Amino acid sequence: MTANPTEASATPSSSLAAPAEGEPYLLTPGPLTTSIRTKRAMLRDWGSRDNAFRDITEDIRRRLVAMANGGDDYDCVPMQGSGTFSVEAALASFIPREGKALMLINGAYGERAAKILDYLGRNYITHHTGEYEPPAPEEVDQILSHDKDITDVFVVHCETSSGVLNPVKEIADIVARHNCRLIIDSMSAFGAIDLNAREVPFEVMVSSANKCIEGVPGFGFIVARKDALERAEGNSHSLSLDVHDQWVNMNKTRQWRFTPPTHTIAAFREALLQHEEEGGVAGRNARYSRNHQVLVEGMREMGFHTLLRDEQMAPVITTFYSPADPNFHFESFYDALAERGYVIYPGKLTEAETFRLGCIGYLDEHVMRGLVQAMRAVLDAMGVTDCSPESPAIAGAAE
Amino acid sequence: MTANPTEASATPSSSLAAPAEGEPYLLTPGPLTTSIRTKRAMLRDWGSRDNAFRDITEDIRRRLVAMANGGDDYDCVPMQGSGTFSVEAALASFIPREGKALMLINGAYGERAAKILDYLGRNYITHHTGEYEPPAPEEVDQILSHDKDITDVFVVHCETSSGVLNPVKEIADIVARHNCRLIIDSMSAFGAIDLNAREVPFEVMVSSANKCIEGVPGFGFIVARKDALERAEGNSHSLSLDVHDQWVNMNKTRQWRFTPPTHTIAAFREALLQHEEEGGVAGRNARYSRNHQVLVEGMREMGFHTLLRDEQMAPVITTFYSPADPNFHFESFYDALAERGYVIYPGKLTEAETFRLGCIGYLDEHVMRGLVQAMRAVLDAMGVTDCSPESPAIAGAAE
Repeated sequence: MTANPTEASATPSSSLAAPAEGEPYLLTPGPLTTSIRTKRAMLRDWGSRDNAFRDITEDIRRRLVAMANGGDDYDCVPMQGSGTFSVEAALASFIPREGKALMLINGAYGERAAKILDYLGRNYITHHTGEYEPPAPEEVDQILSHDKDITDVFVVHCETSSGVLNPVKEIADIVARHNCRLIIDSMSAFGAIDLNAREVPFEVMVSSANKCIEGVPGFGFIVARKDALERAEGNSHSLSLDVHDQWVNMNKTRQWRFTPPTHTIAAFREALLQHEEEGGVAGRNARYSRNHQVLVEGMREMGFHTLLRDEQMAPVITTFYSPADPNFHFESFYDALAERGYVIYPGKLTEAETFRLGCIGYLDEHVMRGLVQAMRAVLDAMGVTDCSPESPAIAGAAE
Repeated sequence: MTANPTEASATPSSSLAAPAEGEPYLLTPGPLTTSIRTKRAMLRDWGSRDNAFRDITEDIRRRLVAMANGGDDYDCVPMQGSGTFSVEAALASFIPREGKALMLINGAYGERAAKILDYLGRNYITHHTGEYEPPAPEEVDQILSHDKDITDVFVVHCETSSGVLNPVKEIADIVARHNCRLIIDSMSAFGAIDLNAREVPFEVMVSSANKCIEGVPGFGFIVARKDALERAEGNSHSLSLDVHDQWVNMNKTRQWRFTPPTHTIAAFREALLQHEEEGGVAGRNARYSRNHQVLVEGMREMGFHTLLRDEQMAPVITTFYSPADPNFHFESFYDALAERGYVIYPGKLTEAETFRLGCIGYLDEHVMRGLVQAMRAVLDAMGVTDCSPESPAIAGAAE
């Protein structure tokens, strides 16, 4: 892999430092490009039971509750493993064994949550809205009106498999009106898209270190109502993933029950400080929105079509149709861009040929311009002259 | 916390570089002091689905199978989370739902494994031999002769709660003779104490990145017979912790199913290279044995007593009785040593006042001499004149 293209890293107006020589930009939904300041926090070893490290854990938990505006009603429980580990921990700990869940599914992450419930043997029904259409709040209302056994509703905030933003506020209001509880998978949104517990009455929210807060991967975290955490006792299928047990022990000892990823956690604290310095969620959202705008404009200029309508998209990850041009081959496209210092992401839809470009991580609009320029050069070299998809109206959603 | 004591870091004959200014040595069972070379490997971001990262995962798996001399019969499955996550993953994936396990328990880690089986609702019996006495192979033989329902036996290689080394070779032979399967928790031993699949016929071995291979924490790994991995299909209680699913997907795609701790994994590869350069398991064992010897000699010179007899101890972590001297207070002892750059570890026994000192990690005998010197100074300052325990014969095991 070669160095980042000079057109991006040498732009004097770029406010962000470029990664090290030879290291590509990651245009993915995570693991992301992170700042060198964040990574440098991993250059020391911490005793996981030492007070200095306990202070870091406490500080992180406090800041995450504040980011969700959780006040005294919520607490934060970090959990080792990937984001999926935290989703499983939350589903198992918060959906009662005798409960019934409504799983709102419009992509791979909703499907994965349902698969977790299959492992757990918990009772649930699904409401599918295809691969990228958001669930309609009124339909959720109808389902909850008809099925009084439902106790918990699960929704993904931003479905990374397409990039669609789901209407969590409207859904939260309906779920609350039916006296049900809402679990939000805000993996790729939290920290960049506002999720305010005072306005969106959620019971549980799950996210991860290596998404919009721009830490490195190694743990996820759960922000939940304290009364939900109390009720979760004895509900988990797993010692490792028991959110209640982790919570009680962490509050008692300020320690993780089992070895925490110390370096990842130290890096995350540094990432949280940078998040704050950038202006918190609003500041982070502004940079990502600008990234998204520059990217989509540049791609459309080249003739690419987005999967989603503008109002459906989040400034997180964007799905583009692959060009129908017979000279286009995704593998060579991917490799040639990686050569130029940009790692992109394959699509995840079954019904159309697509690829995805993330705009989260330690990236700014100059990187996005560099990416668009690099794509232009790669497509020229491939002999791709037409970037429009086979059937732009395949989903009735392309621009 | 102040810098490392100059008597250790300035010793010209020390072959290891001291940690950074202000960073203490960790005399714990992990997370450990690691080399700066290992930590520097975390200064870049990796796309987790990128080929360059897949190569790293493949390389790590191959080297770990080789370290266990597993040949073609074994494979390695790394798993996100702490070592306990991997132990839970292994127990759930390999002990059949209709099986019955014999849990050999002589410390906290054996207890924890049994607690995991409680969560799983799996059938098991325990064989307790107190807080540090190793299980006698002939007793295991008798149990297996009497209870023909037992399918799987679990044993901890080195019980970190006391530091005792359990006779895994003798137990493995007996388990094999009874046509049962052996699961070894070799968390704190693998990489420093030889565990050769050709000589110790184990079915499954579990260890972690941040122990004797001297990586940083964030994942564990399982080395298991391929036929055991085949049979594990559909057995796990958890999607995240499903070893079979992780294995099949990793072999198919060379990727982790869910976001891996990329930086931790890159650091681990670098740690594996250093392990090899030091002479593999034999070389690592030699350094740790020397650390252990210097430490125990120095401590005994001061009047401390070890919990275990020499032949019971592994060069991993050593339990010492706390001095009976009324001027001794563990908390102040801990804090004063931390001030001088040494983080030590509390005891974990219920029946005696003890503390523990690890000798694993990026440490050598010069560090151990510095530690002993620092202890001398701290005990002098505390006014502790007698380091012998209340009742040296409390366990019939003290020197």
